[in-house]
Amino acid sequence: MQKVNIADQLERFSEAWSPRIVGELNGQHVKLVKLKGEFVWHHHEEEDELFLVVQGRLRMRLRDRDIDLDPGEFLIVPRGVEHLPVADEEVHVLLFEPVSTLNTGNVRNERTIDSPVKAV
Amino acid sequence: MQKVNIADQLERFSEAWSPRIVGELNGQHVKLVKLKGEFVWHHHEEEDELFLVVQGRLRMRLRDRDIDLDPGEFLIVPRGVEHLPVADEEVHVLLFEPVSTLNTGNVRNERTIDSPVKAV
Repeated sequence: MQKVNIADQLERFSEAWSPRIVGELNGQHVKLVKLKGEFVWHHHEEEDELFLVVQGRLRMRLRDRDIDLDPGEFLIVPRGVEHLPVADEEVHVLLFEPVSTLNTGNVRNERTIDSPVKAV
Repeated sequence: MQKVNIADQLERFSEAWSPRIVGELNGQHVKLVKLKGEFVWHHHEEEDELFLVVQGRLRMRLRDRDIDLDPGEFLIVPRGVEHLPVADEEVHVLLFEPVSTLNTGNVRNERTIDSPVKAV
């Protein structure tokens, strides 16, 4: 059992769209990810997903509106809801989501990461 | 679906040891809580519990050692592990834990809160 320093973990990688697993509890993962640019429209069939912004500004595009998130703000995207994360500038995000969550949800493309790196 | 600003939510209450539910996903709650002083030794039979410090310093006492947590640091206390949160000065903490989690775990006393307030 060891504590995790979020800033320290974020210093250890630079690639965007490549989540790192930094914790696991109750069948859920805690992940850190850096976002830059636009992702891909997708949804998760079975998983709700929490995005907590650590640094930068995240725009979560939904089909009917956009929600901008600043540091210290989080959004829970329920299962089934299509979303598109957009980062005009680099954004650092903490994710809480089930272990089963695939980053691109129902879509499979070059952004899909089947086995995120376990950093802790 | 609405974003949650952690600092705004923390401004809305002042009582220590009284968690507020600010999110729910995948059978888990996101809670905010203010701690001041010493809690009670306890463990959770079925639930792993994540403590993320937002403000102040939290000392998590375990039976074999203490772990001090500063803002931006988190600790996952696995089910079955006895722990005692201590806050010499007021600490603000984000909790991530199953909906079934009772704050005092296997102990029932004046600190027990059966139905935390749903703030969001």
